[in-house]
Amino acid sequence: GNKRVWSGEDAGMTLPAIHSTAHKGTFGTGYLLAGSDTMPGSALLAAKGAIRSGAGKLIIGTSRFAAGAIAGAVPEATYEIDGFYKTAKGKLPDKIKAAAIGPGLEEEDAMERCVKTLLAEEDLPVVLDAGAIQKRKYSKRKIPPILTPHPGEMSRITGLSIEDIQSRRIEAAGQYAKEQHVIVVLKGRHTVMAFPDGDVYVNPTGNAALAKGGSGDSLTGIILAFLCTHSSIKEAVANAVYLHGSTADLWVESGGERSMAASDIPELIPAVMKKLEEKRRRAE
Amino acid sequence: GNKRVWSGEDAGMTLPAIHSTAHKGTFGTGYLLAGSDTMPGSALLAAKGAIRSGAGKLIIGTSRFAAGAIAGAVPEATYEIDGFYKTAKGKLPDKIKAAAIGPGLEEEDAMERCVKTLLAEEDLPVVLDAGAIQKRKYSKRKIPPILTPHPGEMSRITGLSIEDIQSRRIEAAGQYAKEQHVIVVLKGRHTVMAFPDGDVYVNPTGNAALAKGGSGDSLTGIILAFLCTHSSIKEAVANAVYLHGSTADLWVESGGERSMAASDIPELIPAVMKKLEEKRRRAE
Amino acid sequence: GNKRVWSGEDAGMTLPAIHSTAHKGTFGTGYLLAGSDTMPGSALLAAKGAIRSGAGKLIIGTSRFAAGAIAGAVPEATYEIDGFYKTAKGKLPDKIKAAAIGPGLEEEDAMERCVKTLLAEEDLPVVLDAGAIQKRKYSKRKIPPILTPHPGEMSRITGLSIEDIQSRRIEAAGQYAKEQHVIVVLKGRHTVMAFPDGDVYVNPTGNAALAKGGSGDSLTGIILAFLCTHSSIKEAVANAVYLHGSTADLWVESGGERSMAASDIPELIPAVMKKLEEKRRRAE
Amino acid sequence: GNKRVWSGEDAGMTLPAIHSTAHKGTFGTGYLLAGSDTMPGSALLAAKGAIRSGAGKLIIGTSRFAAGAIAGAVPEATYEIDGFYKTAKGKLPDKIKAAAIGPGLEEEDAMERCVKTLLAEEDLPVVLDAGAIQKRKYSKRKIPPILTPHPGEMSRITGLSIEDIQSRRIEAAGQYAKEQHVIVVLKGRHTVMAFPDGDVYVNPTGNAALAKGGSGDSLTGIILAFLCTHSSIKEAVANAVYLHGSTADLWVESGGERSMAASDIPELIPAVMKKLEEKRRRAE
Ligand SMILES: Nc1ncnc2c1ncn2[C@@H]1O[C@H](COP(=O)(O)O)[C@@H](O)[C@H]1O
Ligand SMILES: Nc1ncnc2c1ncn2[C@@H]1O[C@H](COP(=O)(O)O)[C@@H](O)[C@H]1O
Ligand SMILES: Nc1ncnc2c1ncn2[C@@H]1O[C@H](COP(=O)(O)O)[C@@H](O)[C@H]1O
Ligand SMILES: Nc1ncnc2c1ncn2[C@@H]1O[C@H](COP(=O)(O)O)[C@@H](O)[C@H]1O
Ligand SMILES: [Mg+2]
Ligand SMILES: [Mg+2]
Ligand SMILES: [Mg+2]
Ligand SMILES: [Mg+2]
Repeated sequence: GNKRVWSGEDAGMTLPAIHSTAHKGTFGTGYLLAGSDTMPGSALLAAKGAIRSGAGKLIIGTSRFAAGAIAGAVPEATYEIDGFYKTAKGKLPDKIKAAAIGPGLEEEDAMERCVKTLLAEEDLPVVLDAGAIQKRKYSKRKIPPILTPHPGEMSRITGLSIEDIQSRRIEAAGQYAKEQHVIVVLKGRHTVMAFPDGDVYVNPTGNAALAKGGSGDSLTGIILAFLCTHSSIKEAVANAVYLHGSTADLWVESGGERSMAASDIPELIPAVMKKLEEKRRRAE
Repeated sequence: GNKRVWSGEDAGMTLPAIHSTAHKGTFGTGYLLAGSDTMPGSALLAAKGAIRSGAGKLIIGTSRFAAGAIAGAVPEATYEIDGFYKTAKGKLPDKIKAAAIGPGLEEEDAMERCVKTLLAEEDLPVVLDAGAIQKRKYSKRKIPPILTPHPGEMSRITGLSIEDIQSRRIEAAGQYAKEQHVIVVLKGRHTVMAFPDGDVYVNPTGNAALAKGGSGDSLTGIILAFLCTHSSIKEAVANAVYLHGSTADLWVESGGERSMAASDIPELIPAVMKKLEEKRRRAE
Repeated sequence: GNKRVWSGEDAGMTLPAIHSTAHKGTFGTGYLLAGSDTMPGSALLAAKGAIRSGAGKLIIGTSRFAAGAIAGAVPEATYEIDGFYKTAKGKLPDKIKAAAIGPGLEEEDAMERCVKTLLAEEDLPVVLDAGAIQKRKYSKRKIPPILTPHPGEMSRITGLSIEDIQSRRIEAAGQYAKEQHVIVVLKGRHTVMAFPDGDVYVNPTGNAALAKGGSGDSLTGIILAFLCTHSSIKEAVANAVYLHGSTADLWVESGGERSMAASDIPELIPAVMKKLEEKRRRAE
Repeated sequence: GNKRVWSGEDAGMTLPAIHSTAHKGTFGTGYLLAGSDTMPGSALLAAKGAIRSGAGKLIIGTSRFAAGAIAGAVPEATYEIDGFYKTAKGKLPDKIKAAAIGPGLEEEDAMERCVKTLLAEEDLPVVLDAGAIQKRKYSKRKIPPILTPHPGEMSRITGLSIEDIQSRRIEAAGQYAKEQHVIVVLKGRHTVMAFPDGDVYVNPTGNAALAKGGSGDSLTGIILAFLCTHSSIKEAVANAVYLHGSTADLWVESGGERSMAASDIPELIPAVMKKLEEKRRRAE
């Protein structure tokens, strides 16, 4: 497989064009299963990441309590109240272009049925994050599921120790990707993106300002939006990780490294996206 | 009918003057029937659009859940809890200057009774958006109802395919406006505003940054406010669509085109309105 | 009585000094009875006005629904849930320095008992606004109650027509102030402040950007804070009205006149207060 | 003991380094027991202070009502609903690095059991603030509990009058610290930090803009985060108090001294932290 750093140029060149006649349908509908009564904020962080990254429409499946707590802060989203349990029973909103599950959700028996419903939709790109990253067998799928483990979650699903994983990040991610036929986004400094075909991209952006609860939730939302708007799954994942890290690089120019909060990420996306779009124009 | 682009000069010249002795009564009370438990955000987006565009007072008829979720983000508004069902039973707050119904509402039997109550008020300008845009017969009315369909909703009420509508937008909108004696705001790039008397204005502002869930909700709020403050219905509609698009043109100067969120629109209105007011002063 | 315009110099010179050793107790506790299930936002607007204007602590007596809707937007405040009904039964939080009642409250039988409880506290400055401004008899009090009617509310309590009131604002306010032994803040362009001793101040600041629902609620909060921090009741009222109008004068420098929202007022207070504090320093 | 002012250089030099390979686990999990139905905002102010000061993860133990009111404003936090009562029964979330209790909580019988559970965890730094600052006996502990009384609370636990305390702040704080083997952060102008070993630091930053309800809540959150990220308890406390005061010094450069709100503190931390980090770099 081809192992390389996914650079700003790569991102600039592969960011999909926007036609002046586009409408919200053009940019697809993302379905986000995230947030619970004890972790309502994860749904907000993922949702704002998706809205700021260009998803045409966003449906959030979450608890009634979480929806009430976050709706005022992301008014663009609509809700499937208790969507997690509805999807666990096989129900899905119609015409969704991509789905993401896990931020703010904990392991419970309904999780496996929910993941199963999502993966049964052949043409639906699916991001499995946080509570949805569990030890399980994956059957081959047209679009490999996208797992976004941090080293702790990677250890949970591989049985490898965190030290072992961190000492050979590319190898560990690559191996799991190939064995399970999934895409593994092994988060942390220089996030590794391993694809089942052996390709591995390494992300050059980001810094320790992201080392705080919630950063991963917003990444999941950005990936969800890019899956709604990119034709290539690889480019969607690589550009999302690049954009996510770039917000932290912009942040440390004026803010203390330890003072960044995950809710800053969506607020920084417009400026970073503007730079990427300018790279795109120059590349044309 | 007179077909033309509604330019910045048109908007500048027809923006109503503000007298130093004005009070909130001068700028009328808007009644907004919007938002539900699954789509609370639509009410917030429409409400902020209305507040930022100059409505004197705003009453939001919405569910108790939606009111609880959004009240902290638009503290200027007051609420008619379950106003949609009260109006479906014929009740209306007194002394309202204009009404808008539909954002965040879905088709249900109460909708037709609710629309009927609003349209029965002879002198009340009424905006029908989203869930309120359904196939129905309109009886002639002193003030034609204002419909704000996107191409999908236009297809729903005309039976025409979206491709057909988009290939002859002015004709399709003009025909429905004349037949049903309504004002049709056919949204999308170069929004078409067709009036029952055959006049057609085309909006020059806006871009694909608006191609995202919620943009239309905020337009409805802006139209509602302009109906409260303009004497001419045509000018109110044309100026609202012009102002709405202008916020996206201002946005792309510094933000990524795909990163605009509908909640940016009310935040951008003050700067865009300032420019329009300056055009007004120069035009005097 | 002495009739004059209350100028920036007056405000600068009478703004109380702040000693470096001050603590929140120094700046008093305001008790704000405001907001209801249908008008929760009024409590938020008044509360933020009070917090931004220097109240040491703020207790909001409001409904549980309103508290839940606004608490996240004004985290500095604490709550007396259903405080309006508790105070109607004679109960008051202890050691409050000033009270304000009425924003977002409607006339109901408990209102008179509530107002009675407040006015029975001899040394407690009390602001009566909106729903608390009703036709009633006032017995003479050490600190005259402060009424903040807009012309419509003034008409309600005097029986005079709005036109009559607006044609002789100083006379109408002055007469009611003397007869009822109250302070009348007759709102509108060039707000008139009439005191029972015949003094009348006229406010030079503000513009029609304030002619929108909620502006008055934030004024009530500013007055409440200034009553907590000024020794002179007259200066507290005059400076609050001056500061409130100045936020609108600052706003129109960069924002459209019709685009100001009442929630902008507390956000603009810091810059306007800074200018007043500088005037204070220069005056020393 | 060593009595001295804790200067910017001290803070710059002792601010822990951040390694590029850090992850949220590196920066620890803070457990914040704060906020109630009548004082939900205190939990939000403390939580945002902690998130902006670098805690890796934050769990808030609070009431369901308070969680619903604040979750949208601090989406990075997760919740232990009714955590205060769970901890009073001996339960604690696992792997917490530091805990803080008291903001927005009132004295009740469960408080003593809750404090007992926290202090029973030998290696857990614990901040006792507001409602948790009560007259009680402290048994010697590896990590002395950190009390953050304002003069009123200091009077409550020492029986001394506020005047007496304020006339000999260093002595009063030092005495209590030595007798009870606790760290006393006696708040107010030139906050005194007295340690059981006789060391006393005095904070040079801050001003009367902080003399408003809620300022102390955000300090507690900053201390909690610094206890999660500093190895030295003394440096964590001193740097937190220094940073907290510095936000008020930055505020008065552009905002009125009486217009600062406690919710401004977390918003100002990034800029102040940036300056401290630059001091750190220069000191290297
Ligand atoms: N030291 C670091 N450098 C760069 N990125 C980081 C660092 N620490 C955390 N991150 C990113 O922050 C996010 C953390 O995800 P999570 O642990 O799920 O909240 C991931 O995108 C990580 O790649
Ligand atoms: N490509 C585009 N160019 C200009 N305006 C657009 C574009 N896409 C959507 N809009 C506007 O965004 C809003 C979408 O409304 P709705 O579909 O109801 O949310 C309408 O005002 C459209 O005119
Ligand atoms: N045209 C105007 N010029 C100056 N101030 C105004 C104007 N209209 C309204 N206001 C102020 O806005 C507030 C309205 O109060 P209310 O009607 O209770 O919301 C009062 O402080 C008025 O003085
Ligand atoms: N005059 C003042 N100068 C400096 N800091 C102050 C002043 N007044 C209050 N503070 C700080 O504001 C906070 C008040 O805490 P609390 O009373 O618990 O809300 C403490 O950190 C005090 O040190
Ligand atoms: Mg995560
Ligand atoms: Mg729509
Ligand atoms: Mg009023
Ligand atoms: Mg305190």
